[in-house]
Amino acid sequence: MKVNDRYVSFYYENDNDYGDIIIDPKKTALLVIDMQHVFISRPTIESPTQEEQKEAIRWEPFYKRIDEVIIPNNQKLLKFFRDNNLEVCFAKIQCQKKDGSDRSLDQKATGYNELLLPPGDPLAEIVPELKPQEDEIVVQKTTDSAIAGTALSLWLRNMGIDTVVCTGVLTDQCVSGTVRSLADESFKVWLIEDACMASTMELQEHELTVLNNIYCHVINTEELINAIK
Amino acid sequence: MKVNDRYVSFYYENDNDYGDIIIDPKKTALLVIDMQHVFISRPTIESPTQEEQKEAIRWEPFYKRIDEVIIPNNQKLLKFFRDNNLEVCFAKIQCQKKDGSDRSLDQKATGYNELLLPPGDPLAEIVPELKPQEDEIVVQKTTDSAIAGTALSLWLRNMGIDTVVCTGVLTDQCVSGTVRSLADESFKVWLIEDACMASTMELQEHELTVLNNIYCHVINTEELINAIK
Amino acid sequence: MKVNDRYVSFYYENDNDYGDIIIDPKKTALLVIDMQHVFISRPTIESPTQEEQKEAIRWEPFYKRIDEVIIPNNQKLLKFFRDNNLEVCFAKIQCQKKDGSDRSLDQKATGYNELLLPPGDPLAEIVPELKPQEDEIVVQKTTDSAIAGTALSLWLRNMGIDTVVCTGVLTDQCVSGTVRSLADESFKVWLIEDACMASTMELQEHELTVLNNIYCHVINTEELINAIK
Amino acid sequence: MKVNDRYVSFYYENDNDYGDIIIDPKKTALLVIDMQHVFISRPTIESPTQEEQKEAIRWEPFYKRIDEVIIPNNQKLLKFFRDNNLEVCFAKIQCQKKDGSDRSLDQKATGYNELLLPPGDPLAEIVPELKPQEDEIVVQKTTDSAIAGTALSLWLRNMGIDTVVCTGVLTDQCVSGTVRSLADESFKVWLIEDACMASTMELQEHELTVLNNIYCHVINTEELINAIK
Repeated sequence: MKVNDRYVSFYYENDNDYGDIIIDPKKTALLVIDMQHVFISRPTIESPTQEEQKEAIRWEPFYKRIDEVIIPNNQKLLKFFRDNNLEVCFAKIQCQKKDGSDRSLDQKATGYNELLLPPGDPLAEIVPELKPQEDEIVVQKTTDSAIAGTALSLWLRNMGIDTVVCTGVLTDQCVSGTVRSLADESFKVWLIEDACMASTMELQEHELTVLNNIYCHVINTEELINAIK
Repeated sequence: MKVNDRYVSFYYENDNDYGDIIIDPKKTALLVIDMQHVFISRPTIESPTQEEQKEAIRWEPFYKRIDEVIIPNNQKLLKFFRDNNLEVCFAKIQCQKKDGSDRSLDQKATGYNELLLPPGDPLAEIVPELKPQEDEIVVQKTTDSAIAGTALSLWLRNMGIDTVVCTGVLTDQCVSGTVRSLADESFKVWLIEDACMASTMELQEHELTVLNNIYCHVINTEELINAIK
Repeated sequence: MKVNDRYVSFYYENDNDYGDIIIDPKKTALLVIDMQHVFISRPTIESPTQEEQKEAIRWEPFYKRIDEVIIPNNQKLLKFFRDNNLEVCFAKIQCQKKDGSDRSLDQKATGYNELLLPPGDPLAEIVPELKPQEDEIVVQKTTDSAIAGTALSLWLRNMGIDTVVCTGVLTDQCVSGTVRSLADESFKVWLIEDACMASTMELQEHELTVLNNIYCHVINTEELINAIK
Repeated sequence: MKVNDRYVSFYYENDNDYGDIIIDPKKTALLVIDMQHVFISRPTIESPTQEEQKEAIRWEPFYKRIDEVIIPNNQKLLKFFRDNNLEVCFAKIQCQKKDGSDRSLDQKATGYNELLLPPGDPLAEIVPELKPQEDEIVVQKTTDSAIAGTALSLWLRNMGIDTVVCTGVLTDQCVSGTVRSLADESFKVWLIEDACMASTMELQEHELTVLNNIYCHVINTEELINAIK
């Protein structure tokens, strides 16, 4: 079933089964994934090397979109869920041991996915605009999927949740892993295209196309809010 | 294989395969289970009803053994593991939501296993004598098994741990569930008879007999320390 | 909550919250655990040693009760569930590799829980009286808990099952591990006292007392059938 | 770390940490994913509608590459692993219940991922060229990830396996989900670019780029065999 004609992959090109966006708010949770300084705030480097300057330029479009589109839409969604007393939860990458020995292998590698975010590291904090409130669940994970390495799916089921609205970063990494895990665990998943982001728009659009209709339905912030209202 | 002749059940009565207590400290973690006020500290009730007084008398032998034997032995084990830079971790029952909606069904029941320990509840605290230090892992669970509802087995494996020394309460409930889960997940398990406790010595001895040789080996604090030293 | 006054442990002695046995058949599955030749059929040994003769005598009361009570009650339950088109599933211990390398550590030990039941081993077969039919689910496990080492809890949830009726052997081992896992996974569990068995009646009664009211409700075959009818 | 310069995504463009392909064969298993008739054999339709003819043309390049490249390379890998007594395992999509009620939600949808492959369905068979032998593990899954809905990760760990070589279909769906799950479970993963396939080469190349260096290393059949020899 499709709910729109955007992000249609080869598999669903000739599929003509269309449906409405139907969501039961009482069984739905918003899951904001990895919106932490380390991933979405420009690193502050006193005297950047030429290498670091080049890297900053390469990533600038990502940070710009995070600031202008992704954070505002996550704020909009958080406000809507909170105003309507709907369930909100968060995932963040953070290990338990100072030396990171508890991390899964995909976070102990070198390069981009070398992630050492021990307890107390300010880089691991969720950005203040999206700060968790009161007893909103925040799972700390040492995996990419927010389901594989946490008790989240058990807790959500215990709470009567069968539908998860996913946002956050990075669409092709932790978001994709989480969406796939949730679908395998039989949750209905809605992925919000203007509230999640990959490093580039090309990766973003590709991943939305891969996930859409198979593991989730990709809609935008406004469509989600209208469907629940 | 038996390592001694205590707590031998029907299944192992005629088994004559004896072995030594051999433990590789670098691959071993101490897991202290549910040593929280709610379970092991006498409740303070201003003007107890007759019913509550009767209940206090019924539980008194339990609290006495906790104070005189179980806490001191856990302190001894914690000191030994910390002095030797060995891994220490804790499990505690605590839910994430104020209303306890995230708890598993066996903790939402009425009676003894109605367990509502929301974030910030002082009753959920681990007793000060056994307080976790620095980056020692503390898993919060809404299940009885410390494995079923947490990422602990993943983290332990990531850390190169294949052996777990279990202590805590209650031997026939969360300790038993955790020992069984650990064995099913292929950890070698050592259960410390004078550092864990059920509500009565009869339940304690029965459960040690059921678990011993099948899911773990039951030894005492001194034997464990001597084996590692 | 108690549903009767049998098998009451220390924890529930003074609990006066009584309820009825209420079961929604459409959300209920019968789970028959490990009723395999290796566990419940007398071993056929051509010329038994004195040791083996002694062992046969020691186990005779177990086999007698299996034959006279446990198998007939499991047959009664299977017939009732099948006649009413209710869900039936089975667990059995069986590894995938001839050499048993895929078994969890608690099944690679020596003594009673050295369990090498490779594919094709007739000893691993479920006894003919209780043979699975058509598309009844049979999970093969290399663990004691039928939940820890299989996809069963996922499949049951996918099928809309939230209640499991447990029977089989051994009450203090695989049955207990499965009941505890199911409760932690938020299934309602009913354990049928005259359709499950430990090696001795003493172990049987003790384990029923430990599990009852905490992880399940212990009732008998007739009570279960009457509650669903 | 990169092992070559192919399939490099934005994240690893400027990464200069190169390493060799180092694989310990004794700790390595080959995992062949979903090479079943339903996915990789042209459907035989007696009198195809115009719609079905169009669909056949659209998929023809996929089937061609399966026949000419993917099956031969899987055969090569299977022969190499078997000749060297290395571990081989398979995953296949197959539900347990005739009506498919046990399937996860992402396999109960309409369109491409409506997958009803009940017991005995010949379409669910692994193609004869790649037929599992003797006690090679074959996990039946109702999920996309071969890890999420099976006991495979437990069995592999029990067998001392810490490295998995992945092949099969579809690279962007079950293969990607499995690779991500394996990485989260701390397995080292090698994905064989000329032994796995998505529906189109564009999806194939994109998914390899997304997964490479983050969740696995993408190499080809020859490189894998040379590294182990």
